[in-house]
Amino acid sequence: MRRICVDMDEVMADTLSEHIRRYNQTFDEEVTTEDLAGKGLWEITPLDRQAQLRAFLDAEDFFEDLPLIPDAQAVLKDLSDRFEIFIATQAMAVPNSLGPKYRWLQRHFPFIPPTHYVFCGNKSILRADYLIDDQPRNLMRFDGQGLLYTAPHNVAATGFVRVNNWREVAEYFAAVPGEAEESA
Amino acid sequence: MRRICVDMDEVMADTLSEHIRRYNQTFDEEVTTEDLAGKGLWEITPLDRQAQLRAFLDAEDFFEDLPLIPDAQAVLKDLSDRFEIFIATQAMAVPNSLGPKYRWLQRHFPFIPPTHYVFCGNKSILRADYLIDDQPRNLMRFDGQGLLYTAPHNVAATGFVRVNNWREVAEYFAAVPGEAEESA
Repeated sequence: MRRICVDMDEVMADTLSEHIRRYNQTFDEEVTTEDLAGKGLWEITPLDRQAQLRAFLDAEDFFEDLPLIPDAQAVLKDLSDRFEIFIATQAMAVPNSLGPKYRWLQRHFPFIPPTHYVFCGNKSILRADYLIDDQPRNLMRFDGQGLLYTAPHNVAATGFVRVNNWREVAEYFAAVPGEAEESA
Repeated sequence: MRRICVDMDEVMADTLSEHIRRYNQTFDEEVTTEDLAGKGLWEITPLDRQAQLRAFLDAEDFFEDLPLIPDAQAVLKDLSDRFEIFIATQAMAVPNSLGPKYRWLQRHFPFIPPTHYVFCGNKSILRADYLIDDQPRNLMRFDGQGLLYTAPHNVAATGFVRVNNWREVAEYFAAVPGEAEESA
């Protein structure tokens, strides 16, 4: 079977909306994802609030109850019949996220076994045919075919195969054979 | 740079001795590693104690303070000058080990950045030139050159390049160029 690696944050889990929610609550602001076109939350946050922005991520409960990206469950469930699915997330940058991410995956994606979770940093370590990720630098390090999953921070990135939502992911793979061609 | 993946349990960390210590303490036994030639602790444990054997691993503190395998630090420090080192451990089978393993690596191997930790299950996901591991099944799934690190349970395994200790690992890689040959 061909193998697809799937990033978590901004692809399966709506990390950004939770980050913005905590930011707005703490600083009495009204930032929306529309304010972020082409930028990360970091880039529009004043310098004296950056430490707090990081602290939100380090909180024990931040990654515990993130909302789902629409259609991620249904499309991955379908794809798992034809492809080998691995979840590959840069969890090492936020060690407090390790346990919460594990539990979140078990709760929302019970059809993907924990043997297929990869908590990593540098994604050049992944051996797979496809990687769906919102970070251009992860796709550039990846050895297979990358798919850039649209997020506010990457709307200006070019040179990638782009998918704007999970329905487009489903369409992309509908045209791809599930069986791997063995290379000699 | 060529890339080496290194397993943790039984290769960097002496997980087995801690497992035996808790077993002996709980059941008032005197099992030693010598009793295990060719077998895992699971295989010599009576059925009615298997649940407890598993519970030892699930304890919050089990992976927190494991002893080091001799020479692992010094040899990996040397190798990290010539090779790209990733740590690849099957942490997903024991989710309580995720945090403790992260902290253990930071404490004992500060020269390996967390970006190069890989907490995974199925090791076929690793893209690397070498994998040092005590589990034959991990080496069989791996796409590069495997090195079987000797542990009591694998002494009878054949068909692998075997290293008996970290001095032998150093000798093996002394004969290997550090720069990767780019394949076309």
